[in-house]
Amino acid sequence: MDSIFMKIIRREIPATIEYEDDEVIAIKDINPVAPVHILIIPKKFIPTVNDASEADAALLGKMILTAKKIAAEKGIAEDGYRLVMNVGKDGGQTVFHIHLHLIGGKKLAFETA
Amino acid sequence: MDSIFMKIIRREIPATIEYEDDEVIAIKDINPVAPVHILIIPKKFIPTVNDASEADAALLGKMILTAKKIAAEKGIAEDGYRLVMNVGKDGGQTVFHIHLHLIGGKKLAFETA
Repeated sequence: MDSIFMKIIRREIPATIEYEDDEVIAIKDINPVAPVHILIIPKKFIPTVNDASEADAALLGKMILTAKKIAAEKGIAEDGYRLVMNVGKDGGQTVFHIHLHLIGGKKLAFETA
Repeated sequence: MDSIFMKIIRREIPATIEYEDDEVIAIKDINPVAPVHILIIPKKFIPTVNDASEADAALLGKMILTAKKIAAEKGIAEDGYRLVMNVGKDGGQTVFHIHLHLIGGKKLAFETA
């Protein structure tokens, strides 16, 4: 069970790390769609949201709270931002290790579909 | 501290309820952007993600796991879907009571900004 994010966590490939603790790591998205575009990734390997279990509830919540913290540090908390998890093919998921997109620093389009 | 969602939870205004338990309620979005567009809402009133605290981690995670469960029930788990939380003005948040958009049932545009 491996992913490009596991390689980043193990420092086998480089990334711009914005935050890290025992449970999560946050890196800059290499193809940003907005001035702030950061991925919050659990260190536990979970391929998609479909593979998450009840036991992962606190970890999933922590991903959101980590995004909140980073948004504040980046100075975009008050203006606002968007949190996105893409799941599977129709959702546009490209790396099969769950991650939360933190997108902000500009006014985002109203709806997303 | 009130919101249109609190009124829905109290059955003061109607909504199409897709799921409900002690902690969360899920309703159809009245302006769907895709064949499946459901909002997962905590019964606890939290205006924005910026107002969530560490104590809310499990509840935030449960919102994601509830979306996962509904996606499976709607038959879109395998094809995929997107989970979105809009925060504040730049994020396009319109109801100031946190909610997670579950969007699916068609191939969604790749990136969102």
